[in-house]
Amino acid sequence: MDNRPIGFLDSGVGGLTVVRELLRQLPHEDVVYIGDSARAPYGPRPAEQIRDYTWQMVNFLLTKNVKMIVLACNTATAVVWEEVKAKLDIPVLGVILPGASAAIKSTTHQKIGVIGTPMTVSSGIYQEKIQHLAPDMEVTSLACPKFVPLVESNELTSSVSKKVVYETLKPLVGKVDTLVLGCTHYPLLKPIIQNVMGPSVKLIDSGAECVRDISVLLNYFELNKSRELAGQNHRFYTTANANSFAAIAEKWLERSVNVEHVNL
Amino acid sequence: MDNRPIGFLDSGVGGLTVVRELLRQLPHEDVVYIGDSARAPYGPRPAEQIRDYTWQMVNFLLTKNVKMIVLACNTATAVVWEEVKAKLDIPVLGVILPGASAAIKSTTHQKIGVIGTPMTVSSGIYQEKIQHLAPDMEVTSLACPKFVPLVESNELTSSVSKKVVYETLKPLVGKVDTLVLGCTHYPLLKPIIQNVMGPSVKLIDSGAECVRDISVLLNYFELNKSRELAGQNHRFYTTANANSFAAIAEKWLERSVNVEHVNL
Repeated sequence: MDNRPIGFLDSGVGGLTVVRELLRQLPHEDVVYIGDSARAPYGPRPAEQIRDYTWQMVNFLLTKNVKMIVLACNTATAVVWEEVKAKLDIPVLGVILPGASAAIKSTTHQKIGVIGTPMTVSSGIYQEKIQHLAPDMEVTSLACPKFVPLVESNELTSSVSKKVVYETLKPLVGKVDTLVLGCTHYPLLKPIIQNVMGPSVKLIDSGAECVRDISVLLNYFELNKSRELAGQNHRFYTTANANSFAAIAEKWLERSVNVEHVNL
Repeated sequence: MDNRPIGFLDSGVGGLTVVRELLRQLPHEDVVYIGDSARAPYGPRPAEQIRDYTWQMVNFLLTKNVKMIVLACNTATAVVWEEVKAKLDIPVLGVILPGASAAIKSTTHQKIGVIGTPMTVSSGIYQEKIQHLAPDMEVTSLACPKFVPLVESNELTSSVSKKVVYETLKPLVGKVDTLVLGCTHYPLLKPIIQNVMGPSVKLIDSGAECVRDISVLLNYFELNKSRELAGQNHRFYTTANANSFAAIAEKWLERSVNVEHVNL
């Protein structure tokens, strides 16, 4: 039993897709969230910079006395998950292995697509993890550099978004039966992505899959919060404008949220 | 990536219900199983003896170079899981927390029944774990000392079994909406138990729930077996008669198995 909050970090608002799933599956747990929207997107940045920025957020979360840290960002997971996990004495989760495992279970024709930021795709980490577990899988990866800026500017259903998603994903249509949304921002574009890919393609939300892992690890490390305490003490921090962050967060989480601006 | 087998231990054949689920969900993993049928049932034994016997099996599994140990036995989990987990440097899983979590998720009226061996029930561990996570749950526990001997003697569908199950479970009928099968032997009696409890009662198979945890921890600790290697190198050991064990195992696992007698 451990009543401390769970820490989440992301380059911006994308990790909220993980938080939404957490609040559904584990509504009694408390959340501390830090989004680095001022420096998003991370995808096109060099690995060393992503590493520095992620550590700044990790250290910020540690000052909030968290019991677990979730890298709710595929780019950060690709670059620095193993290093952070090795250095901290609390559990550290990434979103890539849960997404890779779910894709292997889901695919019916061994044809998996992965979309992500330029860094996630160029790291080849999804392909590596999927093919390590299941060498017969055909993995096709595609960088979607325009998706995170769309989401960060709250363009979730505009005609601009539809056009960008359609043009970006065209090379994958008809080629895969399962598509990993390898960036936690992308579930915010899920209806458009599903529409472009077609109804038979299974979309894997790496962040939502990660919540199953959070639940198991809370059990394994005996870190669950007691349900005697109401789980309403969530705190959100952003390096950019608090109101802009709150607008997206409140819509996505379907509740009012308290957002503070913070400098890292 | 780690191609060593996963070790399972049980007081007898009950842990095979966990193995069956493992082979369904993670068919590429290898299994080493030890069942202490010669000394089953564990349930009526004193805690100190259960502790000694379980450690004998743990040490046996360690000689087989396992990468993870699953206490596929509620009684052993109740008595010694935390101790074994603390002492070994490989992950050690029990079946109680996964069962308790699944019951909390399943119940619709906060009325959970738990059936188990006398030791599991008198330890109060399910009630403790469930109410720690969710204090508003009403937990009714019932010891079923006759169930394990029925299963160990392969009496899975006889009229004797039906009579024993009916008479034992009568106090719970109509009182709970969810029933935890808090002994890995009990899923072998599942059709009879479901029939007695009624179709609306959700039965929680603690062993099957545990496989979800195995999968997540294989990911977290990066211990998955490569799928390049076929997962057909399973080994089963029993402290009692190998042929009797094989008869139950082959029926339950729907495949031929290789069983060796061993003295602990």
